[in-house]
Amino acid sequence: MTDDDRTLREVGEFSVIDRLVAGRRQPDSVLIGPGDDAAVITAPDGRAVISTDMLVQDRHFRLDWSTPHEVGRKAIAQNAADIEAMGARATAFVVAVGAPADTPARHLEELSDGLWAEARRAGAAGIVGGDLVSSPLWVVSVTVFGDLGGRAAVTRGGARPGDTVAVAGTLGTSAAGFELLSADGPRLPEFEDLCRRHRVPQPPYGQGEAAALAGARAMTDVSDGLLADLGHIAVASGVRIDVASEALQPDVAALSGPADRLRTDALGWVLGGGEDHALAACFPGAPPAEWRTIGTVSAAGTAGPGAFVDGRPWTGSSGWESFN
Amino acid sequence: MTDDDRTLREVGEFSVIDRLVAGRRQPDSVLIGPGDDAAVITAPDGRAVISTDMLVQDRHFRLDWSTPHEVGRKAIAQNAADIEAMGARATAFVVAVGAPADTPARHLEELSDGLWAEARRAGAAGIVGGDLVSSPLWVVSVTVFGDLGGRAAVTRGGARPGDTVAVAGTLGTSAAGFELLSADGPRLPEFEDLCRRHRVPQPPYGQGEAAALAGARAMTDVSDGLLADLGHIAVASGVRIDVASEALQPDVAALSGPADRLRTDALGWVLGGGEDHALAACFPGAPPAEWRTIGTVSAAGTAGPGAFVDGRPWTGSSGWESFN
Repeated sequence: MTDDDRTLREVGEFSVIDRLVAGRRQPDSVLIGPGDDAAVITAPDGRAVISTDMLVQDRHFRLDWSTPHEVGRKAIAQNAADIEAMGARATAFVVAVGAPADTPARHLEELSDGLWAEARRAGAAGIVGGDLVSSPLWVVSVTVFGDLGGRAAVTRGGARPGDTVAVAGTLGTSAAGFELLSADGPRLPEFEDLCRRHRVPQPPYGQGEAAALAGARAMTDVSDGLLADLGHIAVASGVRIDVASEALQPDVAALSGPADRLRTDALGWVLGGGEDHALAACFPGAPPAEWRTIGTVSAAGTAGPGAFVDGRPWTGSSGWESFN
Repeated sequence: MTDDDRTLREVGEFSVIDRLVAGRRQPDSVLIGPGDDAAVITAPDGRAVISTDMLVQDRHFRLDWSTPHEVGRKAIAQNAADIEAMGARATAFVVAVGAPADTPARHLEELSDGLWAEARRAGAAGIVGGDLVSSPLWVVSVTVFGDLGGRAAVTRGGARPGDTVAVAGTLGTSAAGFELLSADGPRLPEFEDLCRRHRVPQPPYGQGEAAALAGARAMTDVSDGLLADLGHIAVASGVRIDVASEALQPDVAALSGPADRLRTDALGWVLGGGEDHALAACFPGAPPAEWRTIGTVSAAGTAGPGAFVDGRPWTGSSGWESFN
């Protein structure tokens, strides 16, 4: 990390990239790392799992709320969660970044440190390549690669009547953090942990693989909202999913303080809030120990496939929609 | 393709994505395509070649110059060229797109048609996944995957004294097209083909693999400028590269019309212009038939590694730099 304030324009693209790449130790799965036209990584079982997500300044993060380090961690976390949701492990990332030419170069180094820190948390993965371009606002676009370890992928389409629905990771904390930040600005010492959860989600790394090993038949990560994402499983599988709000009382209770403060309903955050990147899956038997059961799968019936809470459709927030 | 003018906001993220995905036939290498948390593709030789490039509106393309279809083709072409430059074949792409909420949804369909058209040209590859988000300006971020077919990758670092330097594809046409578009606006019937070359580069697909099979020791694509990119090979390989301008006379002659019109030097476009995504490589013997010899590799000597033209350093445009 340098302590100078020179901008990307002053330092120049190639020198900035040299700084970002210098000293990073790539995992053994990286055969050719940054610095050539492309990287080469191993795909041990002859397959690669791939997902991509783009984060745009003021839409997916705010630089007055989040440090560049936190933006980097969030970008990696939400991509890695998509790999976990297939029952795989993240092995490598490439990251394309757009930023204004007058951005201090050290902000890119902080972003890079955040990318690397979260990539390590996600499974000793590395940043194997990238692109750095001029843009009037920050854009961080990540593509993640994962390894299924020879197993079949766990899609959204395999849930069957009789399955148990379970989740791993927190629910509603990102939504609560977002509303706290929106209501009171960035200084809220008593709720700082929730605000941090919004800035940096904490997917339950390793639980995607654990679920696959436990026989999960369908899985997704909670990015749009619990009921919205379970609805995606229900539609893809052609089944009905029933969630019992009683089973979510610990999640609701954990958010009662901020909900009281904001005079809102914590259950709404738990059922409708996205971006926690918890995992939700359907199991033919008991889920792994780290998972908690929240519902059941049954035949679609006359109402058609969908996700319900306490027998009723969810009428709160229907989940994140990019263009609203 | 629909003919309505409804915006992304009106149609909604998920319905737009449904339209973009509908009816696309994925290649056999795609085990799980769009619609789940991640895609799964085959990596037949147990490795994956990966590269990423981000295109930002008004920086890398202008919507008053290029149709959405052309933006899509360019985004795929410049990414696929990076895979060719490793001696590999592009097999799959993921594409993250940011666009304003008031963008007509059919513009995204045109972009998608362009992405698919160029992916097919690049080697029967498919778009296996993506992301669509709201952004105040268009941003198209592509990640490409390639297959080395069991061969070693051709990096920038393998050139040796005595090698022959050769190129495949056009040089300077994108730079000429850019200056024509800049000087006279989009209507230039006599130079329309050059303007199109700027909007949609035409990498010599298949020649990366052909070069690898012919024993190429170092290779790159011409994205920054011929001398700049040969300089990258020279530095990575620790050698001196000498280009003979005489060998580039056919390239110069092909651009003499527009150069005269703009009272500029066509050799500058050929040596300094990037974005054609030609391939440049160093061969221990004769290059393949489709390649033309333009120079030689020798020991670095006291001047140090670098690329020279007619024995002198190149003093024209030093190549694309993102933050200038």
